[in-house]
Amino acid sequence: MEVESQNGEEKYAADIFSIKEAQARISSFIHKTPVFSSESLDALSGRRLYFKCELYQKGGAFKFRGACNAVFSLSDDQAAKGVITHSSGNHAAALALAAKLRGIPAYIIIPKNAPKCKVENVARYGGQIIRCEPNMQSRESTAAKVLEETGAVLLHSYNDGRTISGQGTISLELLEQAPQIDTIIAPISGGGLISGVALAAKFINPAIRILAAEPKGANDAAQSKAAGKIITIPETNTVADGLRAFLGDLTWPIVRDFVDDVITVEDNEIIEAMKLCYEILKVAVEPSGAIGLAAVLSNGFKKNQAFKDCCHVGIILSGGNVDLGTLWESFERR
Amino acid sequence: MEVESQNGEEKYAADIFSIKEAQARISSFIHKTPVFSSESLDALSGRRLYFKCELYQKGGAFKFRGACNAVFSLSDDQAAKGVITHSSGNHAAALALAAKLRGIPAYIIIPKNAPKCKVENVARYGGQIIRCEPNMQSRESTAAKVLEETGAVLLHSYNDGRTISGQGTISLELLEQAPQIDTIIAPISGGGLISGVALAAKFINPAIRILAAEPKGANDAAQSKAAGKIITIPETNTVADGLRAFLGDLTWPIVRDFVDDVITVEDNEIIEAMKLCYEILKVAVEPSGAIGLAAVLSNGFKKNQAFKDCCHVGIILSGGNVDLGTLWESFERR
Repeated sequence: MEVESQNGEEKYAADIFSIKEAQARISSFIHKTPVFSSESLDALSGRRLYFKCELYQKGGAFKFRGACNAVFSLSDDQAAKGVITHSSGNHAAALALAAKLRGIPAYIIIPKNAPKCKVENVARYGGQIIRCEPNMQSRESTAAKVLEETGAVLLHSYNDGRTISGQGTISLELLEQAPQIDTIIAPISGGGLISGVALAAKFINPAIRILAAEPKGANDAAQSKAAGKIITIPETNTVADGLRAFLGDLTWPIVRDFVDDVITVEDNEIIEAMKLCYEILKVAVEPSGAIGLAAVLSNGFKKNQAFKDCCHVGIILSGGNVDLGTLWESFERR
Repeated sequence: MEVESQNGEEKYAADIFSIKEAQARISSFIHKTPVFSSESLDALSGRRLYFKCELYQKGGAFKFRGACNAVFSLSDDQAAKGVITHSSGNHAAALALAAKLRGIPAYIIIPKNAPKCKVENVARYGGQIIRCEPNMQSRESTAAKVLEETGAVLLHSYNDGRTISGQGTISLELLEQAPQIDTIIAPISGGGLISGVALAAKFINPAIRILAAEPKGANDAAQSKAAGKIITIPETNTVADGLRAFLGDLTWPIVRDFVDDVITVEDNEIIEAMKLCYEILKVAVEPSGAIGLAAVLSNGFKKNQAFKDCCHVGIILSGGNVDLGTLWESFERR
């Protein structure tokens, strides 16, 4: 829900204060992830690139920041019966890990088509796995059923201020590690990552440019920005299994007001960027994780005069949970 | 050549002083590479593992340390006409990069079967590539010819005190980053890496255990240790393209006296370890780079009582230059 304050100004689900609180809350649990650079990729893109390696976050993705903040925000009473989520993967593992650290149960509803390695991660962290059909109705109805049975707390993977605040800690770190950054590119799906990143970065440097990268086959964010309201699409079709969700009512106002542009890329551009990540950066990203690099190398970015001043570009490599078999198939398909 | 000192004591091609000199000489050029850990891999191995990520060294492999030390050890007169080497890959790229930094030409003799990405790396760093047949005779005769034509200095990829000293800087870093380490496992091929690593580590902590990891299909070091003299084998057969060289007369005495044991592993164990590196550590190693993890997970290590006290194990992930196509074929072959 959006919250209207008394004087009519819209408030957002998170802000710099909730993000700094999150940082204090989670800093002893999370990894401060490294920032990599590559002269070869700088030359290829014509910019200086700063790769924030969130694939080296615990659980293999940025999601642990938000999940950890949400779980440790709960009072002891709230936490006692555990937490629930429905997620195709990285948030699920992240929540299981955070719950394990807090010593409470985690009930994870996972669609049947989720990548095997992501399901294994949930199991590794002790999450209790409940399978559902691969559509939002089944995810939500299964969650409601488990909720009733257990009395646990539902923690949404992106449409939650606590999650958004956790993800925002990436910008606090990144702009300390590379203060010269004038542009940040992050993947967009449900919008939790980019909402947190944008809020924190714009507070630190209002002139910073925030760009979202999105697959053409799941371009609801680009359509929403163009329409000025949330647009959902009947079907998504992309190799980036982490980028198939739609904006929520809490992430949308932040995306609308703080994300400067959405760059859409083809699946083959994502695969090509992944290969560069493997062969040049030596980092084993998942497809969703490589989309920021794909965006920087796309003609839509390179040839657009609006982006000619994007000289120092932070790229969030959001995760690295990938089945090698699936990965290769995606190379073969090109 | 081995050097006999006046009192008959054997001296080695490098020592802690030459290694510390190397560190001072190259520290502004090299990356101080990170050390990664993984609770999942600790559980799988039953030890605490410390992964020294030399695949994040410049040029994508530890080789840049040795090449950089060798190139910057030359006097201006020596350096003026450039440097030459024959190498299947990582040393070649490393030398090209070091020469570029010093502003001198690098002539690189590369066998025709070298991985494409390694050849591309040489080209990227401005090395002048001369192709030869994939055997040592052709490599050496081609090198001799280029030597005569150019007057450049031949810098061997491992059988050189300057190279060995450069590689030894890895131990100085690693034992500062993780002083609790009681065992270091490094790949062995020509022996340059492990010679430097062993000399430096044993000086810092004489009780430390140094283990070499070698493919069964190129097990000349294991045979040499068993025989007490350098053994070469007529043909090598391993997926680890970086581990097909034989010990040299300068590396052998160090390997003989400072390497505690050689662990040989099958190619399928190397591939399995590589997959774990990708899927769990998220680092894109090449086959040679994953062999240390393969050794730790092998029955030859796990079930050997001699290694039961190896609790804190440093593993050198030596390089990450891999053709993704070749990589996948090696997975398929299992």
